[in-house]
Amino acid sequence: MASTSIRYGGGVSREIGMDLQNLGAKNVCVMTDRNLSRLPPVKAVLESLVKNRVEYKVYDAVRVEPTDSSFKDAISFAKNNSFDVFVAVGGGSVIDTCKAANLYACHPDADFLDFVNAPVGKGKPVGGAVKPLVAVPTTAGTGSETTGVAIFDYEPLKAKTGIASRAIRPTLGIVDPLHTLSMPERVAANSGFDVLCHALESYTALPYDQRSPCPTNPINRPAYQGSNPISDVWSRHALHIVAKYMKRAVRDPEDLEARSSMHLASVFAGIGFGNAGVHLCHGMSYPIAGNVKSHSAKGYNVEHPLVPHGLSVVLTSPAVFNFTAPMCPERHLEAAEILGADIRQVKREDAGAVLADMLRQFLFELQVEDGLGAVGYTKDDIPALVKGTIPQERVTKLSPRAHTEEDLSRLFEASMKLY
Amino acid sequence: MASTSIRYGGGVSREIGMDLQNLGAKNVCVMTDRNLSRLPPVKAVLESLVKNRVEYKVYDAVRVEPTDSSFKDAISFAKNNSFDVFVAVGGGSVIDTCKAANLYACHPDADFLDFVNAPVGKGKPVGGAVKPLVAVPTTAGTGSETTGVAIFDYEPLKAKTGIASRAIRPTLGIVDPLHTLSMPERVAANSGFDVLCHALESYTALPYDQRSPCPTNPINRPAYQGSNPISDVWSRHALHIVAKYMKRAVRDPEDLEARSSMHLASVFAGIGFGNAGVHLCHGMSYPIAGNVKSHSAKGYNVEHPLVPHGLSVVLTSPAVFNFTAPMCPERHLEAAEILGADIRQVKREDAGAVLADMLRQFLFELQVEDGLGAVGYTKDDIPALVKGTIPQERVTKLSPRAHTEEDLSRLFEASMKLY
Ligand SMILES: NC(=O)c1ccc[n+]([C@@H]2O[C@H](COP(=O)([O-])OP(=O)(O)OC[C@H]3O[C@@H](n4cnc5c(N)ncnc54)[C@H](O)[C@@H]3O)[C@@H](O)[C@H]2O)c1
Ligand SMILES: NC(=O)c1ccc[n+]([C@@H]2O[C@H](COP(=O)([O-])OP(=O)(O)OC[C@H]3O[C@@H](n4cnc5c(N)ncnc54)[C@H](O)[C@@H]3O)[C@@H](O)[C@H]2O)c1
Ligand SMILES: [Fe+2]
Ligand SMILES: [Fe+2]
Repeated sequence: MASTSIRYGGGVSREIGMDLQNLGAKNVCVMTDRNLSRLPPVKAVLESLVKNRVEYKVYDAVRVEPTDSSFKDAISFAKNNSFDVFVAVGGGSVIDTCKAANLYACHPDADFLDFVNAPVGKGKPVGGAVKPLVAVPTTAGTGSETTGVAIFDYEPLKAKTGIASRAIRPTLGIVDPLHTLSMPERVAANSGFDVLCHALESYTALPYDQRSPCPTNPINRPAYQGSNPISDVWSRHALHIVAKYMKRAVRDPEDLEARSSMHLASVFAGIGFGNAGVHLCHGMSYPIAGNVKSHSAKGYNVEHPLVPHGLSVVLTSPAVFNFTAPMCPERHLEAAEILGADIRQVKREDAGAVLADMLRQFLFELQVEDGLGAVGYTKDDIPALVKGTIPQERVTKLSPRAHTEEDLSRLFEASMKLY
Repeated sequence: MASTSIRYGGGVSREIGMDLQNLGAKNVCVMTDRNLSRLPPVKAVLESLVKNRVEYKVYDAVRVEPTDSSFKDAISFAKNNSFDVFVAVGGGSVIDTCKAANLYACHPDADFLDFVNAPVGKGKPVGGAVKPLVAVPTTAGTGSETTGVAIFDYEPLKAKTGIASRAIRPTLGIVDPLHTLSMPERVAANSGFDVLCHALESYTALPYDQRSPCPTNPINRPAYQGSNPISDVWSRHALHIVAKYMKRAVRDPEDLEARSSMHLASVFAGIGFGNAGVHLCHGMSYPIAGNVKSHSAKGYNVEHPLVPHGLSVVLTSPAVFNFTAPMCPERHLEAAEILGADIRQVKREDAGAVLADMLRQFLFELQVEDGLGAVGYTKDDIPALVKGTIPQERVTKLSPRAHTEEDLSRLFEASMKLY
């Protein structure tokens, strides 16, 4: 089974022209977003392509937080050119768009919904290979360079969904920490919260041996397998790095050590959650992002209203981990301790409250908006948010604690205000 | 680039018949050694094959610690049958033999030395794919289920060498801790020392950014890249598990938690060293194993004299880490601390002595033979041992400290007696 090779180091993206030559590339598709197209990461990549005489075309119309229609636009660009290798230079939005463009260009007869996760799409397995994709992440966030997942906002439902298949995992991830130095403060914060939640959710996900139904044939095992001794190593390690470096990385864009560490943490957390899965924060984030009214995201150079992914995920985290803690209090306490809490006197039944407090404090210090209320939601929106969470069963079923629609309601309500 | 999927859990090897069906296997080669052919791990695998009606042939003549001639015997077995999938059930000896059999059966025109590491062999790159190989490790040791390495004793030189290519990495590793319960006490000890040294050597290997010459094209990067932030996670984690569980696992064969933990540690350390490399303990172990005179290995049900791999590696570890410590004292101190030393008052310049003492104590408590002297070597053998280490440059160059032949002499001499 193919998995992603990771190359890490300051300046490694300058070698990409040689990698493309080694892959025998004759006609490369470089995807990015308009904002990044003028910034150093894209420049470094294009210079290396020119130097190594690799032919390429640039698509820079990626939408920040893509939708079905923005995916389709990128797909038709890919279909209209016969590219043999894809290169994504950007955050999760760019990498995910590039995965989709590659997938559908290689399956020109497929309907768009064919490969989209059920129940929104048909969830058909991808038969046959796609072209190599080299991902060059520029945020310290999604870990999309390591995963077989491409997320988009399905506008008819006002909720995010995605495509999940090992077939679309990048061939190579070029993790060059110099690329993260240009991230605006809020992009660093929000993408860092994504790392935090990937780590926390995968570490507390339903254990792999408690998942049911247990598929009788190993080929039917889902991509998200539940927490397990291998993903635990990555998740816990990513959490340690977030605890140590995230505040520095957000506050000082020139702190190379902190930004490099967070860049690696995003890879580690990506490997962890790509294997174990995420659960309620992510499941509930999809309608939070999809139902956005007029919130405009500070530091995100875009024209449409947006609750950035990392923010939409982290706002429910105090409520969520308070809710899930009774199922595995030790892990919640351990997470609180890694984040800096003194847990020596804490009782197991207080694990959720302690972790929630720790998270609220962390968010407060990083000047995060004060709950769902501050990004434009009121109590009246809760039914729509709950409704948008229901189709996210692929992730929410990995919650260690079973939950009803009332539980979801209460979690959204508890997340309206944080401080 | 293909890498290995790992499946872990008690009883997972009972699913192997389905995996082989999923791979479309019509004619499977099952390799093992004579001893294991009568034990539960092989039984469980064969039962699953029968149940799923997978056709197979068993080769059970793997030599414990293979040689060029034992490899060749297995290769001709593979060449005489057109197998479409290979299954290795055993320790490193079996898995390595199976990798070689698969490789040469798929390259019937290659000379045996073509793919063997230079300078002993020609070190040609493997062009073209080999058949899928499913590795089912039964020791908690080599990590061979995750690596692209196959080691054998090249009898004309009396030293081990090997084949190293990503092409021979197993497709799937089935890590079933129940298989380790039947390991005799000394096999558990020696294979556990292999894990210990994989972890320690990869953690202290020359850092990836100090390796030279730095290849101008990324395709020429060696398999062993030096210690790096990703391999560090695995190496350190493996070391923690060894510290916590190894003594229990050796002393009580029924301690499932301890044996399971060591089984996972062997996978983790395998990923770590497969990426970062090992250095002097391994480089010096190859002539220690290859020049064996009459030492018979307790608990190893074999007729030939043998210094088991893990033992040959660990006997020089106190001397080696004492020698390498000045280059990265923090890492040596951290390792000593993980193994249980109180390092609060220790000066950096004493890092090597402290780690060496810790290792000697660990070995003593696990009743390891008292140095090279106790496995049959005298001072007179040192020149031959040094000579056999010279061709191991592929690994020894990853030592954090440069070394002369005199240094190697002194390290062998210091390892003659430990306690
Ligand atoms: N595929 C996965 O596994 C996965 C996981 C989590 C999230 N996601 C998805 O990824 C998307 C979010 O991605 P993201 O958080 O990486 O941000 P992003 O790609 O949406 O980018 C956010 C903003 O930051 C800018 N930017 C990015 N890197 C920059 C840099 N180095 N310098 C200056 N500006 C920079 C972009 O131009 C954009 O304006 C969401 O759609 C989310 O759903 C995917
Ligand atoms: N390929 C790699 O990456 C790599 C790494 C390190 C070592 N090695 C090589 O691996 C070999 C050593 O392998 P090893 O240490 O795993 O041992 P092994 O395969 O040599 O087996 C040792 C003995 O233990 C017995 N045994 C194994 N599992 C058993 C079980 N579950 N129950 C009862 N008996 C069992 C075997 O029959 C044999 O007698 C050496 O040749 C070494 O050079 C390879
Ligand atoms: Fe995310
Ligand atoms: Fe070894």
